[in-house]
Amino acid sequence: GRPLLFIAGPCVIESEELIRETSLRLADMAHKRGWQIVFKSSFDKANRTSFNSYRGPGLERGMEILARVREETGLPITTDIHEPQQAAPAAKVCKILQVPAFLARQTDLVHAIALAARDNDGIVNIKKPQFIAAEDIIHAVNKCREAGANNVLLTDRGTMFGYGRLVNDMTCIPTMQAMGCPVCIDATHSVQRPGGSTTGGNRGMVPFVARAAVAAGADAVFMETHPDPDKAKSDGPNQVRLSEIEKIFEQLSRVRELITEFNAAAS
Amino acid sequence: GRPLLFIAGPCVIESEELIRETSLRLADMAHKRGWQIVFKSSFDKANRTSFNSYRGPGLERGMEILARVREETGLPITTDIHEPQQAAPAAKVCKILQVPAFLARQTDLVHAIALAARDNDGIVNIKKPQFIAAEDIIHAVNKCREAGANNVLLTDRGTMFGYGRLVNDMTCIPTMQAMGCPVCIDATHSVQRPGGSTTGGNRGMVPFVARAAVAAGADAVFMETHPDPDKAKSDGPNQVRLSEIEKIFEQLSRVRELITEFNAAAS
Amino acid sequence: GRPLLFIAGPCVIESEELIRETSLRLADMAHKRGWQIVFKSSFDKANRTSFNSYRGPGLERGMEILARVREETGLPITTDIHEPQQAAPAAKVCKILQVPAFLARQTDLVHAIALAARDNDGIVNIKKPQFIAAEDIIHAVNKCREAGANNVLLTDRGTMFGYGRLVNDMTCIPTMQAMGCPVCIDATHSVQRPGGSTTGGNRGMVPFVARAAVAAGADAVFMETHPDPDKAKSDGPNQVRLSEIEKIFEQLSRVRELITEFNAAAS
Amino acid sequence: GRPLLFIAGPCVIESEELIRETSLRLADMAHKRGWQIVFKSSFDKANRTSFNSYRGPGLERGMEILARVREETGLPITTDIHEPQQAAPAAKVCKILQVPAFLARQTDLVHAIALAARDNDGIVNIKKPQFIAAEDIIHAVNKCREAGANNVLLTDRGTMFGYGRLVNDMTCIPTMQAMGCPVCIDATHSVQRPGGSTTGGNRGMVPFVARAAVAAGADAVFMETHPDPDKAKSDGPNQVRLSEIEKIFEQLSRVRELITEFNAAAS
Repeated sequence: GRPLLFIAGPCVIESEELIRETSLRLADMAHKRGWQIVFKSSFDKANRTSFNSYRGPGLERGMEILARVREETGLPITTDIHEPQQAAPAAKVCKILQVPAFLARQTDLVHAIALAARDNDGIVNIKKPQFIAAEDIIHAVNKCREAGANNVLLTDRGTMFGYGRLVNDMTCIPTMQAMGCPVCIDATHSVQRPGGSTTGGNRGMVPFVARAAVAAGADAVFMETHPDPDKAKSDGPNQVRLSEIEKIFEQLSRVRELITEFNAAAS
Repeated sequence: GRPLLFIAGPCVIESEELIRETSLRLADMAHKRGWQIVFKSSFDKANRTSFNSYRGPGLERGMEILARVREETGLPITTDIHEPQQAAPAAKVCKILQVPAFLARQTDLVHAIALAARDNDGIVNIKKPQFIAAEDIIHAVNKCREAGANNVLLTDRGTMFGYGRLVNDMTCIPTMQAMGCPVCIDATHSVQRPGGSTTGGNRGMVPFVARAAVAAGADAVFMETHPDPDKAKSDGPNQVRLSEIEKIFEQLSRVRELITEFNAAAS
Repeated sequence: GRPLLFIAGPCVIESEELIRETSLRLADMAHKRGWQIVFKSSFDKANRTSFNSYRGPGLERGMEILARVREETGLPITTDIHEPQQAAPAAKVCKILQVPAFLARQTDLVHAIALAARDNDGIVNIKKPQFIAAEDIIHAVNKCREAGANNVLLTDRGTMFGYGRLVNDMTCIPTMQAMGCPVCIDATHSVQRPGGSTTGGNRGMVPFVARAAVAAGADAVFMETHPDPDKAKSDGPNQVRLSEIEKIFEQLSRVRELITEFNAAAS
Repeated sequence: GRPLLFIAGPCVIESEELIRETSLRLADMAHKRGWQIVFKSSFDKANRTSFNSYRGPGLERGMEILARVREETGLPITTDIHEPQQAAPAAKVCKILQVPAFLARQTDLVHAIALAARDNDGIVNIKKPQFIAAEDIIHAVNKCREAGANNVLLTDRGTMFGYGRLVNDMTCIPTMQAMGCPVCIDATHSVQRPGGSTTGGNRGMVPFVARAAVAAGADAVFMETHPDPDKAKSDGPNQVRLSEIEKIFEQLSRVRELITEFNAAAS
């Protein structure tokens, strides 16, 4: 029965200026509309297609920038962790620690993130790998719980469908909720078109996927946003234009209210 | 901006009694709630797993029974057509003529159904085969249009996802609507689990899939229903209990109203 | 321990001249090399992408042409059947009656083909639909056996892998052989790239797929061939040039001999 | 035109005794039959389903054990690397450094392995992730080449096919060879059935998959083996019994000879 949680921000920390512009805008929305928004941006893109692609400012500088966002805007922060030793320092700044989909089977990483979340009253957000069934994410959830981290959010970012395409199986949402975890839809990465020299995407489908997932019961929505996505240094084709995000979030909130009403009537 | 169209009824004409019970109940809902409901039941299940499975009463007797439903309840009728010569007689009774998913590539069948729809002011409902992309259903739509049938409804009944499982790609909905056709979600067959000695299914997922699709913009919902699904002669595991369908339809109507409001604001 | 069976010919009967040229060439190979070759060509392409695509000469004229091939070359004949009433006339000419993949779930068609095969000492060749697991073809096999047709050949023509692409699961071969049926690899249709305004394909992959399947134990190879595939009226992108087929068949025969030797040593 | 390369050994270093038994047996085969065999075993299973599963002896102890195998048997060694800092120490012992499939998109890991291979005259073996097309492995190959590692082997270990199942697309083999790299078939992990509380598998399919791949042109075969697979601490259901591996390798060598002969005739 809780309102929707939004996780939003630019894919990667391209510059302090970009982070400031987007976080202030999102904070403004959060205050004005009473929305729960968590600010997300990556300090390192560890799995770019090419060795020479832009990766980000790195852990230390990234955390400085994100800590400033937290102070200036009051928004909680989240970022993705790629190596076990990054978990503890990131947990000082981030309320939610994200396990990347490709790495969600790596025991040491999941364990380190779970310990850092436990010690900092944080939340682990496990992205369901593109290559496993919803049922099987329970093993990563259990690794967290065994480490004492009980606040686990599960995210659907799509499942591989043949080569070069992902699909969102909406039945994943109730399946993962049955594990006792809230579920997030990552509408940005779900519309990626992996393959070729740079990963493509289909930004126009983001609102459809997000609305469908919220109607199917999703508790949170992850959506990357950029003032000028076509100039973004990563995931440009699937980030939503910052000027359009408020309207999308408003519609999703309305769908959420309806689903909450249905669920209240059922119980 | 139109209200949702519901297509509902038992999978197959098991008996006149079953058809009468379900159609009266659905007609009662339609009148009381102001819903558009089309009554669906099959006169022949032409692709059962086993040679000895129950198939239905056949074309002639089936049409008699369905014509009586139309007279008694006022509900429009739909059924699925398996051979070209069945199209014209069925079109005398049925407002919507359904092209089965497995057969949607068969030119003669699509052509015959299109001609029968054209001549009887009817609608062709093409089920997107489980094995083609939404983009590629345009060829079946064109075959209808070339035959003079301009009222074409497109239905997503899931796409094969590995062996023994289907998935609904919600991006199919806007993709097929871009062809100028309304789109229906077949929530019943989408949750089938094909394979094994009888086709299984997961009835519990039907409301989630239907709500997601309506939120993604679907114009119609196809849902098979039976007073006692566990005793149904076909598709038992995925038919919805008749006593539960009114509540599901009500929720879907509410989601539809919200989406209609969003679309009105956008235009 | 039997030598490989080859099924070859142009996709569709484009003209008597084409059929004569290809069948004489194949017969020449069969006699010279001692190969078992069955001549295949379709009298009707019943599921073309477009309504206006070339379909073939039809049943009656098609059977005349194929009967002449049989007389002139001595090659056994096969063709694909799309409607139940076509089975009996086709069985007068064809040793092998092919059930198309899209239609392999249609009970009446499978039944009619099985009866025609039984009555004419023929063989039913069921193409495993692109949308079912190898395990599940047993139901179509049982429909044949229940009708008294005991000579059933099963063909793998690929399984849908996402949108627009097929994959050959080589484990299908032993799985289907375990049903007591010999298994054929359709190397032509397996490399189709369905989707778009005409079905594409990747002819260059045909020999790799065929060799892999024969090494995995396939008993027969289906390969469409045309003197000038780029001018073919159907399946041009995946038919093999007639001038190249002898070398491919020779290599496949050599692989077969090796596998036969392995199997003999094992028993 | 080179003979097949075999990569074999128990999945994980369970004990020195197991490693000694299997490596001596494989070395004996290599000497007696003139086969190229590389000994493989993992020092750490970093992505087990459960936190409490057996993981292995770790890097340091693992390298001691593998160094002893190299000295005692003369077999070249390979193992899989999970963290960048493991690459350099492993390269002192291992001729081939394996990039795990789940991690093949992690730039830092690929880079560290490539540098270690370059500095030790070694080979990088990149396992194609289960979630990417063969075409797209070029990006990982390029990351290696940019780091100065020019000996890159590419391995197909199957591609996700729906949930809980993998398939080998044999057209991957020529596609990856076109990148200038030899290609290996990992017949062990290709027959995994991921999902459930422990990963399952289908050992009986290993020889079929391996034969098919070698016939399609694969240059190397990866096959895990254990004296008593049902008691193995990892991947038991898909490891081959040590007593059966010689016969399988012999058959694969025969298939390879035939393909080499075909290729020689073609050039």
